[in-house]
Amino acid sequence: MNITLLRSETPGCETKIHFNNAGASLMPQPVLEAITGHIHLEAITGGYEAADKKAKDIEGFYESTANLLNCRASNIAFTSSATNSFARALSCIPFAVGDSILLANEDYISNQIAFLSLQKRFKIKILRAASLPTGGVDVADMKKLIDAHHPKLVSLTHVPSNSGMIQPVEEVGKLCKERDLYYLVDGCQSVGQIPVNVQKIHCDFLSGTLRKFLRGPRGAGFLYVSDKIIDQKLEPLFIDMRGADWISENEYTPRMDARRFEDWELPYSLLLGSKAAIAYANNIGLEEIQIRNKHLCEMVRQGVSENPNLRLLDIGANQSSIITLALANQKATDVLQSLRSKNINTSVAHRSFALIDFDVKQVDWALRISPHYYNTETEVETLLSAIKKITS
Amino acid sequence: MNITLLRSETPGCETKIHFNNAGASLMPQPVLEAITGHIHLEAITGGYEAADKKAKDIEGFYESTANLLNCRASNIAFTSSATNSFARALSCIPFAVGDSILLANEDYISNQIAFLSLQKRFKIKILRAASLPTGGVDVADMKKLIDAHHPKLVSLTHVPSNSGMIQPVEEVGKLCKERDLYYLVDGCQSVGQIPVNVQKIHCDFLSGTLRKFLRGPRGAGFLYVSDKIIDQKLEPLFIDMRGADWISENEYTPRMDARRFEDWELPYSLLLGSKAAIAYANNIGLEEIQIRNKHLCEMVRQGVSENPNLRLLDIGANQSSIITLALANQKATDVLQSLRSKNINTSVAHRSFALIDFDVKQVDWALRISPHYYNTETEVETLLSAIKKITS
Repeated sequence: MNITLLRSETPGCETKIHFNNAGASLMPQPVLEAITGHIHLEAITGGYEAADKKAKDIEGFYESTANLLNCRASNIAFTSSATNSFARALSCIPFAVGDSILLANEDYISNQIAFLSLQKRFKIKILRAASLPTGGVDVADMKKLIDAHHPKLVSLTHVPSNSGMIQPVEEVGKLCKERDLYYLVDGCQSVGQIPVNVQKIHCDFLSGTLRKFLRGPRGAGFLYVSDKIIDQKLEPLFIDMRGADWISENEYTPRMDARRFEDWELPYSLLLGSKAAIAYANNIGLEEIQIRNKHLCEMVRQGVSENPNLRLLDIGANQSSIITLALANQKATDVLQSLRSKNINTSVAHRSFALIDFDVKQVDWALRISPHYYNTETEVETLLSAIKKITS
Repeated sequence: MNITLLRSETPGCETKIHFNNAGASLMPQPVLEAITGHIHLEAITGGYEAADKKAKDIEGFYESTANLLNCRASNIAFTSSATNSFARALSCIPFAVGDSILLANEDYISNQIAFLSLQKRFKIKILRAASLPTGGVDVADMKKLIDAHHPKLVSLTHVPSNSGMIQPVEEVGKLCKERDLYYLVDGCQSVGQIPVNVQKIHCDFLSGTLRKFLRGPRGAGFLYVSDKIIDQKLEPLFIDMRGADWISENEYTPRMDARRFEDWELPYSLLLGSKAAIAYANNIGLEEIQIRNKHLCEMVRQGVSENPNLRLLDIGANQSSIITLALANQKATDVLQSLRSKNINTSVAHRSFALIDFDVKQVDWALRISPHYYNTETEVETLLSAIKKITS
């Protein structure tokens, strides 16, 4: 990996030390150009006329995303975020009163809220599998709960937003496949930092976002939908003229691919930026990215563990590019601002973002450091010494 | 209105004669700069960090939209399109089996599909009020249906996409207010071309889009939500961490303003472009825009009616900036492409976009011409003579 070249294609690297890639990564030049280029084309030629001109490139978004995830272009829908993808997927499951959903304690807050909303509206039950003392969901407990309750849906957040581990999505997928259960995976924080292969995960849905480890624009996401869901004609609750044909006064027919889950109106500038971001990631290679990120994260975790005023909160056998730590006697805003004043971007996770997990860890907030491949060893050293200064 | 100045601020005017403003209008320079400026800021400083820097401008979107519609900033949510707004609004109505929805024949296709989807899933009933022979919904029939069926929701498309009239949303609003019914108005094609005042309409929701007569970006919309809905704590089905606080393992509380209807992740570049577009429209003035558009549309309708090979399909006492016509012995694609080859943008509405309305009018497709204030009289003449050439 040619870090110097990759950094030269990233305008933000000139002034910022960006360790907030789990928030939103720095976009590389090709992404910027794809977005602003299309906005200008729309202004000059008209919004619909520009989309017609770029029809082939627009199709390329679906192909690139399919390459990334190991599926077909017909399994991909463009959305506005991973949460939005997640909601669209959820909305197609035909829940009946008394049905249950099985999830994990570390699942993303917005997913937790979505499940609670379904619970309130449709009287479904929420089951949460136990976590292992060593971190991550206890797959044996999941199996027990599946066999006792036959949940309608199993859902898992691949890489939790506020916890440094990777969930065993493939093991859980095997359980679901054997029992023919609907399986929804939130890949918001995993896609772009590690290889994600939907065939190995055996999921029916995988939601993802562009702005994080894929280095795409804000307000863009995708949803992988399995052939099973497409063939079963499961449709999102608010299907529109993109997803269905209106054929008679009281009838419509859903289209037979994943775009059934899209809205008709899309921000094509962001879609083309997304395509550029995914092509960029595919070009570097996800295995390469994973190796590089692991190396940078080990440096950070090593440095953190050497500082007695810091407590590393990451547990789990398999750790991600999200590093969370507690700082003794510090205020979240102060730490964030102090680092920002040195042009170091990080982020803060509050207890309410990860209620169950943070209560176990007994913290009100955590500093979240999320390196990505284009970060350098020198930047890690600068970050660690800045934190040392704050805590000493 | 200084047309020359307004055109000089519209890059697309240099090469295109754009009569597809009901599809997507040409963005003016301030909108372009707001979008691309923020994309660059995000690239240079980070996506979250850029949003923090622009917090005041972001707030300005809600204030500008509130000024446009005559409500408070707390009544406004940002969404990705009018259809998306519409779905979010619909998702909060607590429908029970047997409830009914009252709508009109001319309602927008995606809204019709959304109602059919609800009908299929929740066994609700759809009631369609009759249309007047002179065009538009028959308010007396609506009243009759309301009093006979007590619908849970009344919904109306203010300006139908594929028909040249304006529905009497204020009269219907009065009926709904008197009976305390939920009232949802789709303002997708009205906001930006005529004054829209939610206090006069007495609606609970009004959905709108940016790309059409407001001249904003694609992939951007808004939802007006009344204080009644906010106070009743009605919440969208897929509320997320933007709209709610997760307060305990099995509990969340919705926020007390319209942003309860937003997703947490937003495309801030498009939101800031939307703000610029709405400020631009407010600055020109919607009354002024309406007068100018009426003048241009009269020119077009007059020209069309003088051509024996054209049939003007617009009916209704109150006509909009959408002009629909049937061309004898022509193919839709040929007409569209022939005009495009002369740098004239129009659009085509197919029967499936407006099934009920087009069957009454006995057409398979219509050419849609949608002028906006920045169009010129000369452009209208060029358009009419190009159509004359095609049809002769």
